[in-house]
Amino acid sequence: MVKKIDLNCDMGESFGAYVIGDDAGMLELVTSANIACGFHAGDPVVMRRTIRMAKEKGVSVGAHPSFADLYGFGRRRISGERPEDLETQLIFQIVAMQGMAALEGHPMTHVKTHGALGNMAAVDPDLAALCVRAIRTVDPGLIFVTLPYSETFRAAEQAGLRVACEIYADRSYTDAGELTPRSQPGAVIHDPEQSLAQVLEMVVNGHIPTTGGKRLPVSPDTLCIHGDTAGAVAIARRLRSALEENGIAIAPFAQA
Amino acid sequence: MVKKIDLNCDMGESFGAYVIGDDAGMLELVTSANIACGFHAGDPVVMRRTIRMAKEKGVSVGAHPSFADLYGFGRRRISGERPEDLETQLIFQIVAMQGMAALEGHPMTHVKTHGALGNMAAVDPDLAALCVRAIRTVDPGLIFVTLPYSETFRAAEQAGLRVACEIYADRSYTDAGELTPRSQPGAVIHDPEQSLAQVLEMVVNGHIPTTGGKRLPVSPDTLCIHGDTAGAVAIARRLRSALEENGIAIAPFAQA
Amino acid sequence: MVKKIDLNCDMGESFGAYVIGDDAGMLELVTSANIACGFHAGDPVVMRRTIRMAKEKGVSVGAHPSFADLYGFGRRRISGERPEDLETQLIFQIVAMQGMAALEGHPMTHVKTHGALGNMAAVDPDLAALCVRAIRTVDPGLIFVTLPYSETFRAAEQAGLRVACEIYADRSYTDAGELTPRSQPGAVIHDPEQSLAQVLEMVVNGHIPTTGGKRLPVSPDTLCIHGDTAGAVAIARRLRSALEENGIAIAPFAQA
Amino acid sequence: MVKKIDLNCDMGESFGAYVIGDDAGMLELVTSANIACGFHAGDPVVMRRTIRMAKEKGVSVGAHPSFADLYGFGRRRISGERPEDLETQLIFQIVAMQGMAALEGHPMTHVKTHGALGNMAAVDPDLAALCVRAIRTVDPGLIFVTLPYSETFRAAEQAGLRVACEIYADRSYTDAGELTPRSQPGAVIHDPEQSLAQVLEMVVNGHIPTTGGKRLPVSPDTLCIHGDTAGAVAIARRLRSALEENGIAIAPFAQA
Repeated sequence: MVKKIDLNCDMGESFGAYVIGDDAGMLELVTSANIACGFHAGDPVVMRRTIRMAKEKGVSVGAHPSFADLYGFGRRRISGERPEDLETQLIFQIVAMQGMAALEGHPMTHVKTHGALGNMAAVDPDLAALCVRAIRTVDPGLIFVTLPYSETFRAAEQAGLRVACEIYADRSYTDAGELTPRSQPGAVIHDPEQSLAQVLEMVVNGHIPTTGGKRLPVSPDTLCIHGDTAGAVAIARRLRSALEENGIAIAPFAQA
Repeated sequence: MVKKIDLNCDMGESFGAYVIGDDAGMLELVTSANIACGFHAGDPVVMRRTIRMAKEKGVSVGAHPSFADLYGFGRRRISGERPEDLETQLIFQIVAMQGMAALEGHPMTHVKTHGALGNMAAVDPDLAALCVRAIRTVDPGLIFVTLPYSETFRAAEQAGLRVACEIYADRSYTDAGELTPRSQPGAVIHDPEQSLAQVLEMVVNGHIPTTGGKRLPVSPDTLCIHGDTAGAVAIARRLRSALEENGIAIAPFAQA
Repeated sequence: MVKKIDLNCDMGESFGAYVIGDDAGMLELVTSANIACGFHAGDPVVMRRTIRMAKEKGVSVGAHPSFADLYGFGRRRISGERPEDLETQLIFQIVAMQGMAALEGHPMTHVKTHGALGNMAAVDPDLAALCVRAIRTVDPGLIFVTLPYSETFRAAEQAGLRVACEIYADRSYTDAGELTPRSQPGAVIHDPEQSLAQVLEMVVNGHIPTTGGKRLPVSPDTLCIHGDTAGAVAIARRLRSALEENGIAIAPFAQA
Repeated sequence: MVKKIDLNCDMGESFGAYVIGDDAGMLELVTSANIACGFHAGDPVVMRRTIRMAKEKGVSVGAHPSFADLYGFGRRRISGERPEDLETQLIFQIVAMQGMAALEGHPMTHVKTHGALGNMAAVDPDLAALCVRAIRTVDPGLIFVTLPYSETFRAAEQAGLRVACEIYADRSYTDAGELTPRSQPGAVIHDPEQSLAQVLEMVVNGHIPTTGGKRLPVSPDTLCIHGDTAGAVAIARRLRSALEENGIAIAPFAQA
């Protein structure tokens, strides 16, 4: 059986005169686009243009909601607001993105939380459940892109929400199956060969290799591709080619 | 035949910790609510709460889009951006509000532009056409609340978009049928009796009395009620009572 | 010897069309004003008007810096940004406020951190030291308004920064001398008589009465007066009168 | 006598995670930096870093105030707010930038208005006078960088405010001495040779060549260098070299 993987990338994160990422370039390479909803990044013009480009390239689109934090680009960890208020903020972002995608005739397929919100929800059962509720409130048919071995994964499964299991090429994993925190040595994998080997191990053999030498079972649906680093498009192109050369088919999870 | 009029009020204009207007109070009195979409005012929490309250009171809800201008509360006149960008901003606001209303099971019926955008579009054929296009792009079944004798009215009629003709109780009209600019003497009618008389003349007799002594034909659908001035609820209550005492039925235009 | 206390209040927290608090009313009653710097609230117009009113009433002015968080009104707990970046944000706010006050001929005397930043710094030695560094970088002659038995108090003393010791009338204290968290019962004192008694105990006898029955030594300089709650001016007026009737002189700490 | 010209560039216009322009690169080439003040662009961290880099390179720093319009990057034309409010917004920006520069031991020398504000003030006597008042209110010793044959130039001269006369290399001039509007053909000079010739004509011979064939007297102090276009640093480097090769000394106007 041919092994498949989706490639997803955060995009639509420009704002007004400010440009982040080469969205047009990345859309040539990925199969799913997570589009910012104006809370940490993005604006209506950017969102609409990104949806249109994605449609043209046959790339699935999803909402990429965040804390309300343009200044911090959604990377600041924010707490202390009422959970129901945060939930409504997420619902609004997903609804708005879904509506814009529908308008362009390119129905939205998924949701992936951004930055600090995603990191916090991955280890906080309450926040994970809140994210899952927000998605289900908007549309229980949406797919939640999230890491395995996370509270978000568990919350989605428990709620019966379909999950796209996301893996990373350039991050190592702890024995608990979580991403090694960036503050620790070895968190980021800089060697392209090692990155590729890790992805193949996960996609082909269904194992996450951990820093402690374990092999945790995994059934990956999508690989996170970074779009806002220097040379992002070239890196993505090489990774995609290498995967294809190794017999992995690149296809959107939403059509899997 | 019983004469009818809708009472509409801008609301949902609070933001975070900032409160403007007594929305709960106004929802007891009006029949249509124009809800801010986060660009000049409003936020997801405020929007959702306002939709829920409106549904409970049987008040129709509409989008109240604006220039992107939180600091200026949408009252600053803004130009110089690309028309297609402004159009997309309006589309986004209408889509987001429509989506949130649908989610609450209280389908959105109308759109009324806010502040400077509304004032500018009323006298600018291009901007008027842009607003009409934005509404039609989202949903050609939406009703555009706008002044008669305006470019927006003309653009809507030309495009086949349904219009709710809006009148003011406390503003005088020029011989051209436009609101007397606030910079001119006599622009605002402070006397409640005179306000009431003007409304009755418009609703019962179908005439706009102008400052030059003319009587222009009008077929009003909705009366604008201010929600953000001191004593707004009390003023609205007196006006509503007076209309009812004069045999005018108060009912949403969207059900007319 | 006559006992003295300063009354301080956060103000200048309106923004554009949004009004919070009756600043003019509070300025009749307090002796120190902590003015928002545009990050959680406030704008240049509000700031300048507040400084002018304070000058007219002989009220000392200080900066009231915060996290960059207009949507959350500075009440959301924010972490994860680089400490030196947060420090620079605080420096900017203090510099801007000091410059505006100087321009109005009413030199700024103090700094009081706002909301979540203040709460977090009170129990976090690193964040406390960061706040103290920011103030000292701008002007080592500024006075830091802060709670006793806090990391901010300790950090200020250690750095040789002058402190105005702040007390609360309507909050109870733990045996550690900290404010009882609002999540716990008895955190807020609703009875005006009990509030007054607590203040007198602190000002006259120099003791903080704690929930565990202890009496911790304190040498209070200023009493926090809330400005953004319903009836704030009336409550403040009664409290001020009661203090004066009990022989307490009300005077700015900055002139003490 | 050696002819001199200053090279000025807008910078410090990044915001949070968003980067615009290669400020470090431009600071190697220009002699005056106009630094954004957080209203159309910039933030405290960016501002402080830019001031520090400018100081290190011996580049003069000035405030680059704008309308409050982050979304529009200060390029949207905004009107309809109270003139005294706009004036206070400008004052705040200039005060904040001056304070931050003072803190870094690199006193601010000048002010140049940004984008739409600059364009509108150049042809509007009231707005021009407002800008001049704002600068003088903060510090009458500041230099106002502005175009000749403009209302801002006239207003500054009338008020006794020192002006640095600014010229453009890549824009043609009308017979009235104004920049040809970008909407008209020939507004932008794309040929580097023609640009250089125009600058030399202005700097060496003291004449503005106009599109109608006139030669208007001019005494230029500073040449505007664009920093946010593709290849900006390379273009600036070539222009600077060409000027030096033609015997023009590059030096800050503030030390002239």
